Parts: sequence; structure tokens; C-alpha cells
Amino acid sequence: MSTIWIKQADVVTLDANGTILRGVDILIENKRIKHIGTVPENTQANEVIDAAGYVALPGFFNAHCHSPMTFERGWAEDLPFPRWLNEKIWVAESALTPDDVYWGAALAACEMIRCGTVGYNDHYFYMDQVAEVVEASGLKAMLAWCTFGIGDDKEIGPGADKQLAFSWEWNNSANGRIHTSLGPHSPYVCPPDFLKRVIVLAGQHDLPIHLHVAESQQQVDNSRERYGQTPVEHLNTLGLFDHHTIAAHCLALTENDRAILADKGVYIPRTPITYMKLAMPVRTPVTVLHESGITRVALGSDGPASNADMDMLAVIRQQVLLEKYSQENPEALPGDMALRMATQIGAQALGFTESGVLAEGRPADLILIDFNRPHLRPRHDLIANMVHSAKGADITHVIVDGQLLMRDRELLTLDEKQILREAEQRAFRMVRQDMSRVREYQD
Amino acid sequence: MSTIWIKQADVVTLDANGTILRGVDILIENKRIKHIGTVPENTQANEVIDAAGYVALPGFFNAHCHSPMTFERGWAEDLPFPRWLNEKIWVAESALTPDDVYWGAALAACEMIRCGTVGYNDHYFYMDQVAEVVEASGLKAMLAWCTFGIGDDKEIGPGADKQLAFSWEWNNSANGRIHTSLGPHSPYVCPPDFLKRVIVLAGQHDLPIHLHVAESQQQVDNSRERYGQTPVEHLNTLGLFDHHTIAAHCLALTENDRAILADKGVYIPRTPITYMKLAMPVRTPVTVLHESGITRVALGSDGPASNADMDMLAVIRQQVLLEKYSQENPEALPGDMALRMATQIGAQALGFTESGVLAEGRPADLILIDFNRPHLRPRHDLIANMVHSAKGADITHVIVDGQLLMRDRELLTLDEKQILREAEQRAFRMVRQDMSRVREYQD
Repeated sequence: MSTIWIKQADVVTLDANGTILRGVDILIENKRIKHIGTVPENTQANEVIDAAGYVALPGFFNAHCHSPMTFERGWAEDLPFPRWLNEKIWVAESALTPDDVYWGAALAACEMIRCGTVGYNDHYFYMDQVAEVVEASGLKAMLAWCTFGIGDDKEIGPGADKQLAFSWEWNNSANGRIHTSLGPHSPYVCPPDFLKRVIVLAGQHDLPIHLHVAESQQQVDNSRERYGQTPVEHLNTLGLFDHHTIAAHCLALTENDRAILADKGVYIPRTPITYMKLAMPVRTPVTVLHESGITRVALGSDGPASNADMDMLAVIRQQVLLEKYSQENPEALPGDMALRMATQIGAQALGFTESGVLAEGRPADLILIDFNRPHLRPRHDLIANMVHSAKGADITHVIVDGQLLMRDRELLTLDEKQILREAEQRAFRMVRQDMSRVREYQD
Repeated sequence: MSTIWIKQADVVTLDANGTILRGVDILIENKRIKHIGTVPENTQANEVIDAAGYVALPGFFNAHCHSPMTFERGWAEDLPFPRWLNEKIWVAESALTPDDVYWGAALAACEMIRCGTVGYNDHYFYMDQVAEVVEASGLKAMLAWCTFGIGDDKEIGPGADKQLAFSWEWNNSANGRIHTSLGPHSPYVCPPDFLKRVIVLAGQHDLPIHLHVAESQQQVDNSRERYGQTPVEHLNTLGLFDHHTIAAHCLALTENDRAILADKGVYIPRTPITYMKLAMPVRTPVTVLHESGITRVALGSDGPASNADMDMLAVIRQQVLLEKYSQENPEALPGDMALRMATQIGAQALGFTESGVLAEGRPADLILIDFNRPHLRPRHDLIANMVHSAKGADITHVIVDGQLLMRDRELLTLDEKQILREAEQRAFRMVRQDMSRVREYQD
């Protein structure tokens, strides 16, 4: 039996009452939280963590990302979206190999653990490679092999059948830490017949669907022209929302769209840093989603090509700031709600329905944040300090299913030094940097 | 003679050509950079820093803040501006003592050094206390004792004369690291007669003026009603801009205002995180300032009550993201320009005119950023990685006037542990927390 005893932490439980406990112990047995409160002094534990001045929080669930895009971090800067995509990102990705995806995902996993992420929702190619990373890292994930409405395409990997087959082959692997979903890219690149096929498969295999929806008004206009319906109406007519759906972005919604999404219980991950960096207008703010009865709004980093980091604390802060500023309302989106979006709502989206709350019997998916730092004092309001002042680097310990993935900022499951070197060299090759530059950083 | 030898750093010089040097040495002798390039192996140095995989950058100059407001970090959350100010901030500040200001400023100094700030422009009360902190910390600063257009006010300190006298008593102290300015709060709380007196004193003592200008359209409307002029026109008529002026915010400007500010060479610090957190509309974006010929736009954190941290990397990223998003233009405000705003332009605003560039003969005001971290790889673009991915905690070394203030994340000039404890206890007392809460955190 594996036991971790966390001593004297301040615990932000994120339970229904918003309970915050000061200076209490947490006892973890195997995969779950056994007890929160006072632990008898004679308790035996494999690992004892002195957490005086630390805050325990449910770990973050990144509800939408493309983790292997670490390779393109900083590769396409200060460009309009069509040039960003067509001249830089797709050109670079066309040279991608399955091994590259492995190392890109491994680099992302190092970064995510360091920033307190315990689970992520990934949508990319060669996802069997990403699954290997998830298995090795100890993280939780929901993985979708991105599919376009096409047949074989040697450029981006094996045929559509193999891509779809990935989902049921890997579902519930890694001791249940890997969930899979079907990943049709979006209604604008997947024709209705292809989406219908995905919907049938989702039903046959009981798999969620993870796709991009209504990222711009332009997409809505195009959909109306092509199908006489908005993207949300179109997908609803096809029956897609009758399955567990994660519909990323949903930035431009009509009132009817919002009613459909609320009624169907669709999860909507928002990735605010991408919207700001690529200047994508958020026509339907989170406040409006909430007012429309859509309670399942989660948060994600998106890919590191359009955000540039995978730090969920940065995402949380950005969402809160963007909401207050764009609504011209400093009361919009209080910190407690933003933390729930980044933890329990994301966990539910990914099918880890018990995570995101610190309570006895819940999965031990949690992080410790060191508040013994000048920017986190005074502690008038732990929630405010976490949302507006804490940074990824303040997180010292990460525990997933009762396994320590990081102890005192040291990664325990991944060979970070090798990953940094290998991933960077491969990223340089992928973008066809001249060899002199690659050589400069050979270490 | 004090010598620091930094080995094998990548150097982002921020010189006029944007030169970036890879894997070179920096030799610092006393207060200045002696050499950048290859340093002979037999060189003697007091301190040798192995900086392979590190980036050297000019240190940050925070061009507008109220550093002792660390005491109110997290004390007034999710509130509209009038309630934020009247019900929370001013009530708390009314209990402030000079000793409180010392400890609040000391807490801020710890935080600023940890985030790579080498100089800051502070505007608050009891500034002799802040000056003691600057002297002890090794930082550079421009300090203004905030004055309202009033006489004696026992609530906020000594009389206006003493407040103004601070400026010439402390100017150029701490071996030239302290500059002072006159700090009339703003045209909306300082009547014309008082501002005229300040302007006369600025001329007599050759001191800059640091104040708040045009923070909202409401202020502009009120000024027009009272004086028949915008705040900028009003200050210009009084002759204020004939002196070196730092006019914080300037969020609502007319075309004529912009012409005046360009013509007079006024420095304009922007504090984007405050604008977002308190939902203050930026009616005149940085892009428009630049297009109007206003080149002296700097960046600041503002006080930690309205921003919640003093991390200039967070400010830089926020300014870039806000500019791209609000202009609906992903090409707006490239990273290189944002870095210059946060370094050399801020340094010039504070009168440290040679800082902000890494070149031989320049003051050794610089930082090292550790790029051996997953979120900073691959290194396709060092500028992009710094602006969009780096965090304060990636900064390992801070050097000011050739003195190391932080080595490998260890503060060398301040007793951080004592400061954290003392500042927090005093902050709790200031906001009149019940004593049970204060006791909880006694350590």
C-alpha cells in the first residue's frame, strides 16, 4: 500500500460550499484521499511532506490542447491567422514524424507537470505516440486522433480508419488514466457524411467526441451559406450532441445555439490566451454562456504555437482578466469560479468525474503551492492570490492517482534533460532551420 | 575592484539593431559592462557565472507603481472601482503607519528582484521609508511622495512642504541609485494653484514630475466642465510638461492631447493588468500613441492592490496580448518593442538614461534567464519565448550597478524570511483582520 502524508497544509477543497481548511493534514492511500484533518502521529507513510505555508488545491485539467505543438513554440510570431496557419504552422507540421510527436508530447508533459496540470485533453496526430507519453508520465488524459473528412493521407499519418481505431484500442489504458475520444477536426473541414460516421462510431463504442466549433463569425456565416444552419445547429441536426461532446471555443453563438448547448450539456473549453495572441474576437463571453444556462465551461491552454505555454494558472488569470475587461465589469467571473472551470469542470469533460474536489474518498489528483514567497503574501484571500499572483513555478508537488509526479520541483517520472535536448533538436529539424543554428545549441 | 564574469550566455542586447549574440561572455567591472565577447581564460573575477543555456537581458524598469500596496494584495477582489477604492483601499490605508510602509516596500522589493526588476518608479506616502528599502536592497528607483493639493493632513503623513522637501533631500542618494520626482497625485485632486507651486519647485530643483493623467473618459469630461480643457490641455497650459514628466495611464486622449504629449516628450507608463482587473477601458491604445509620434511609452505593474503582482514579464505579455486583441490585429505590438518599453524606455523615464541596453561601457543592470526549462524550448525565437512563455521565476540572477542582488534565486541583500513574516502580520493588522486569523499564520 502506497501512502502519502501531507502535513499542515491550507486546503482549498473546491467543494460545493467552497470550504477552505487551514493547517490540516491530508492522508493519501493508494489512489485516493483517505482523510483530511488530523492524522495520528504514529501513522506510517511512504512519503511525508511538510506543507506548512503551502496550499493544497485540486490539480488542473487542461480541457483543450494540442500538446505536441511545443515544437512550434515561437515559430510563428506576430502574424495574421491565415499566414500563421498556411505559411508557418502547416508547413512545419508537414515534416512531422511519429517520433517527433512523441518528443513534442514529452516536452509538453514536463511543462504541464511543472505547472500543476494533472490531466489534459489532447487533439492531434499520431496519438498512439502521445498515449505512450501519458503512460510513462503518470498524467491523466483524454486523447483524440484528429481526423479530417478524408481517406488515406500519407502526409498526416495513416488512414481515417486507423485514426478512429486508436480511440477504442487505447480507451481506459494506463490503469484507467487514458480516456479516448473521437476527434473530427471541425464541421468546416468534416463533411456531413463523415461526421455521421463518427457519430455512429461514438454510439457503438460509447466514446465522447472532441472537436472545434464556431471559432469565428466567418465560420458561422459560411455554415449558414453551405447548410442553412449555424455550426451548432448543423451538428445538432446530425445528432452529434446526443453523445458526450467537448466543443472547443464556441466563440460566436446565437441565442438558439446557446439554448442547444445548454440543453445537451455540451462541454465548452475556452482558451483565452490564443484568442488574444491571434486576435480572435470572443463574441460570446463566458458570462453570456453562464447566463444562458451553460454550466460546463472549462479552460484550456490550446497548442503552444498559439499560446506559447501550457501553464493553467496563466490561463485562469487571463480568462478572469479578459472577462472583466471585455464586459467592462470588474465583478465578472470571480476567482473561485475560474478555479472550478480549470479543475472539476475540466475533469468532468475528460470523464474523470470524481476529480477536481479535495474530499475523503476522492481520487488523489492534487497539487501543492508554496505560499512562502513574497508575491503570495499577505494571505488575505488564498483564492485571489492563486488566481492573480501565483505562477506555475510556485507549484512544488504534483500527485496523480496517489503517485507523486513532482517532488520539490523535481520531475520523478520523466527524463527531463534528455527530453529538452531531443525535442529541441527535432523541432529545429522540423522547421528546417539551417544546420548552423541547430549546431549552436548542441549540448 | 569588483568583477563578475558571465560565461557563455545568449545575449539579447536590445541595441538599436536588435543584436542577439549566442554563447558569449560578459565581463562586468565595478558598475559597468567592461566587455561582451570572448574573455581571456586567465581573467580574475570575484564571481564567475556559468550561463550556458541562459539568456542575458537588460533588467526591467517598472515605470509606475505603488510598491507598499503589497499590503492590500488580495484585499479588494471582484469589486467595481468606487467600492474598491472607497470601501476597501482607502479604509485600509487610513490605518497605515510609516513602519508599515517600510515593510510593505520591503516585501515588494523581494518580489521585484525575484522577477528581474532592476529599477522602479514609486509613488506613495512616507517615501523616506521606501528610500531606506531602496538603499538596502541595491535596486534603483525614482521616488515621489504622493501629494494632494492640501495642507497638513495627519491621516496621510506630514504636511505638503515636508512631502515636497523629501524630493530634494533624497535625490541622487544611495550612490546615485535613488532619483526623486515630485508626485502631485493627479489634476483631478490637485487644484491649479497647487500644481503651479509644484511646477515652480520642479524648475528650482530640476526635478521630474510623476502623476496620474486621464485615467477615464469621466475624468476628461469633468476636466472640460471645470477648466474648459482636457486634463492634458490643462496641464500643458499650466506649463507642467515643460519639465521631465511621467504621466501614468493617459487612457483617454484626444488628437490634440496626443500632439501635445508627443511634442513635449512626455513619458507614458501603461499598466495593462490594472486596466483589465478593474475593467478600465483603454480608449487610446499603445498603437495609437505610437502612430501619434509618442515614442516614450513605458510599462509598469501599478500597485499590487489592483494588479496583484509586480512581475514585469507578466506585464509585458499582458500588454502585447491586450494590444493584439483590442486592435483585432495579431501583428500589433511585436515582442521586441514590448521588451524595449519595459527596459530602456522605462530606464529613461526614471533618469537612468544609459541603462536598458547591453553594451560595453553601459551600466551593469542586467538579468539572466534560465532557458533550460521545458516551457522555454525550443529556442526558435528568444524574444518570443521571453515575451510569451518566460515567467518571473525563470530569472536566476539580477545585477544592478555591478552588484549581484540575486544569485541562483537566492536574495543577497534582503532578509526575505523576516520580511515575509513581518509584512504579513502588519498587513493583517492594517486591514483589522480578527486576531484569530492573524494567529493562524504566526510562524
